[in-house]
Amino acid sequence: MTADHGLTHVDETGAARMVDVSGKAVSVRSAVATGRVLVSDDVVRALRDSTVPKGDALGVARIAGIQAAKRTPDLVPLCHPIAIHGVVVDLDVHDDHVAIRAEVRTADRTGVEMEALTCVSVAALALVDMVKALDPSATITDIRVEEKLGGKTGVWRREGLEA
Amino acid sequence: MTADHGLTHVDETGAARMVDVSGKAVSVRSAVATGRVLVSDDVVRALRDSTVPKGDALGVARIAGIQAAKRTPDLVPLCHPIAIHGVVVDLDVHDDHVAIRAEVRTADRTGVEMEALTCVSVAALALVDMVKALDPSATITDIRVEEKLGGKTGVWRREGLEA
Amino acid sequence: MTADHGLTHVDETGAARMVDVSGKAVSVRSAVATGRVLVSDDVVRALRDSTVPKGDALGVARIAGIQAAKRTPDLVPLCHPIAIHGVVVDLDVHDDHVAIRAEVRTADRTGVEMEALTCVSVAALALVDMVKALDPSATITDIRVEEKLGGKTGVWRREGLEA
Amino acid sequence: MTADHGLTHVDETGAARMVDVSGKAVSVRSAVATGRVLVSDDVVRALRDSTVPKGDALGVARIAGIQAAKRTPDLVPLCHPIAIHGVVVDLDVHDDHVAIRAEVRTADRTGVEMEALTCVSVAALALVDMVKALDPSATITDIRVEEKLGGKTGVWRREGLEA
Amino acid sequence: MTADHGLTHVDETGAARMVDVSGKAVSVRSAVATGRVLVSDDVVRALRDSTVPKGDALGVARIAGIQAAKRTPDLVPLCHPIAIHGVVVDLDVHDDHVAIRAEVRTADRTGVEMEALTCVSVAALALVDMVKALDPSATITDIRVEEKLGGKTGVWRREGLEA
Amino acid sequence: MTADHGLTHVDETGAARMVDVSGKAVSVRSAVATGRVLVSDDVVRALRDSTVPKGDALGVARIAGIQAAKRTPDLVPLCHPIAIHGVVVDLDVHDDHVAIRAEVRTADRTGVEMEALTCVSVAALALVDMVKALDPSATITDIRVEEKLGGKTGVWRREGLEA
Repeated sequence: MTADHGLTHVDETGAARMVDVSGKAVSVRSAVATGRVLVSDDVVRALRDSTVPKGDALGVARIAGIQAAKRTPDLVPLCHPIAIHGVVVDLDVHDDHVAIRAEVRTADRTGVEMEALTCVSVAALALVDMVKALDPSATITDIRVEEKLGGKTGVWRREGLEA
Repeated sequence: MTADHGLTHVDETGAARMVDVSGKAVSVRSAVATGRVLVSDDVVRALRDSTVPKGDALGVARIAGIQAAKRTPDLVPLCHPIAIHGVVVDLDVHDDHVAIRAEVRTADRTGVEMEALTCVSVAALALVDMVKALDPSATITDIRVEEKLGGKTGVWRREGLEA
Repeated sequence: MTADHGLTHVDETGAARMVDVSGKAVSVRSAVATGRVLVSDDVVRALRDSTVPKGDALGVARIAGIQAAKRTPDLVPLCHPIAIHGVVVDLDVHDDHVAIRAEVRTADRTGVEMEALTCVSVAALALVDMVKALDPSATITDIRVEEKLGGKTGVWRREGLEA
Repeated sequence: MTADHGLTHVDETGAARMVDVSGKAVSVRSAVATGRVLVSDDVVRALRDSTVPKGDALGVARIAGIQAAKRTPDLVPLCHPIAIHGVVVDLDVHDDHVAIRAEVRTADRTGVEMEALTCVSVAALALVDMVKALDPSATITDIRVEEKLGGKTGVWRREGLEA
Repeated sequence: MTADHGLTHVDETGAARMVDVSGKAVSVRSAVATGRVLVSDDVVRALRDSTVPKGDALGVARIAGIQAAKRTPDLVPLCHPIAIHGVVVDLDVHDDHVAIRAEVRTADRTGVEMEALTCVSVAALALVDMVKALDPSATITDIRVEEKLGGKTGVWRREGLEA
Repeated sequence: MTADHGLTHVDETGAARMVDVSGKAVSVRSAVATGRVLVSDDVVRALRDSTVPKGDALGVARIAGIQAAKRTPDLVPLCHPIAIHGVVVDLDVHDDHVAIRAEVRTADRTGVEMEALTCVSVAALALVDMVKALDPSATITDIRVEEKLGGKTGVWRREGLEA
């Protein structure tokens, strides 16, 4: 993409491609991602009291996250399509934020960390949509992979995390 | 979803999740679903004479059903993405209704009854769309699984059905 | 589609087409559709007690219905893309079925009865998915338009309905 | 969704719904959202030198963001479908992060802050996907609306921001 | 995209963006595109005799084209989402090819030539899929805009075409 | 589809169906497709100088092609959903056209020639969209399969091609 500086032939250095994984083994893999949505006191109260005007905000966010995990290859251009075999999304209401945690599992040829990150991100977006009338400043933050299991790499855990 | 009665911690009882099937075996599975669209005499005549103004109603319904079967995990939030390996949709014009029957086959980790039901439902919706100018009262009815083969359950047939 | 009986030239009689509505006026239109999912006593009990193992079945069905309403033109081949401006889905648990009712509103060039029917159908499919482990015989039935307002037709109500 | 505590009739308090906006005026509206992806020195170097192995990371992220903005109503369950009329996504490589800024414009019935947030979030996800082989700890953070113009609210700016 | 030659700041020259059209007027616009699929004698015979083994090839191609026209903004990254108001697709079987012609109409803010081209291209792809078992060499060719009406440009016709 | 000449029972001859491949073996398969976009001198110059006003045209085309390859079963009605495991798209600017070449790989049950053709077609559409302001006559041409490897057929090469 950055490579055709006036040349006729497009130099493939820099050209986006979907890496070939057809030779990788099918194995059980999982990934955990987390994130947070910073919200106002009003939002925390409405979530705790189930009085968010647009409806059950945590339930909507959870389903949005699960559906987005399935749609990851449609959203992330170079992601491989993957047969997702299990998704759990947890939302925890804290005093000044909602913590989101997603665990995605598959038995396929590549890892599912992008699926877990997409799940958390879209759950966060859906949550913001549900509460934005109460708090237009809601902020999505700290979305990251915590842990990744399976495949050739084996176990990867974010530094500072203990098993 | 129904579980956070004002509590800070979201009790996962009741929270929607996509059940983990990564441990299930890949095996050939199939499902048959059926349904009916009740239509007026005018519609039956137009279908039999191929004179529906919007075009070939049965053909459009059949393709809509096949495509919807592939999109089941996108429509049904907790459905697993599945590699559909075969779909046949039959439409039969009767004197006061159109009978729809879909058979879906896969070699994957979960059953395909939701795919068969989705196929019948969307074929029915597409059929209604084609004939609604002739009959705004067209009614979709009796959509159900008839038979399910494969997986750990083996054979399931709706009561009253014989093999 | 049914028109090329061995002829070189495809006679357009019978060919599917998306009817031109660019000349129609933008106006507020709405449609109400209803349907039912017949379920076993076990399912009724689990819905009333919020103990469906896969999670909040009514909540998932409601969201699936709303999202499907937005995706109607993607599912129904000859449907026009429409800017949906409001959707409400109600689910009522009765002693032997769940009643579903959807109302869709728009300010656009065509009616939204297909959107309302799609909303009810996919809410029903999602509900079946949530309870199928408890009742593999669950049946979707009586999906139909009840009422349609706006546009050149004005008011249409299913016979037997009073305003 | 949280409302059916064992009752037959589903109390609509708490039920998710798509709010009716058919009565709102069509007017020009815009929204700006920002966010950051924290990355390692290696990633910063590879972005600056255009040597990311999977290809042009910033270009892929930009396109992913634009496409996601168009797909917002598909991802966020209660979002209205909106005719997006313009999207600009900027990515700035800093010494320890990439700053993302999206501006979305429309002439429609509702604001586009969810579209701007979705644009930034998915651009960030795509960027993480491009660099995750170099830095599995990349973190998406501080995604928020900066400014919103048009509609009945007029101008909204995040506190601390000056025009 | 091609602009960040090792610089920290991404120079926006060359960066993909969706051009703002919110200031353009809503008006009726249409576009006609054409294309051809070169096929073997066997395929021509099967199409004329309606004996293509996978089913009604022309019918499937027509519906695929109509649906793809609606999905243009999803496929073409910088295309504006547009409310398509009418689509007609014609397929003509000639002695060594199938001619495809699509006309798309809208009342919106931008032209619909990309929608017409996408309609022809995907109708062609679907046709190839239907006949590829008979002719693996089928070739899609000469896809181009013939005519474009409406908007500020007024009328545009490919050179050599007469009104 | 062409089969119901006024008969009550729809004769399945001619009815579209998705052929059952559940019995086929999973094996590594690949396909190469090519195509060309004929463009004016102005476009060639702008592509070579990276001065296309809408942005990096070749980069956008490449990503559009990769994403479309993943969406093939959604676009081509009777195509099986396939787990694509690798995609490379090359674009070469020649003096009067841009040559496009796509190679798609999978380890699945059916060939990927439709995925390769779809990749080339949509890359071509996206390229036309990027340059249509400079050249409204741009023409997509000569899209065809060059080579297909794997599966029961083994190797297929377009006549005139040497390995």
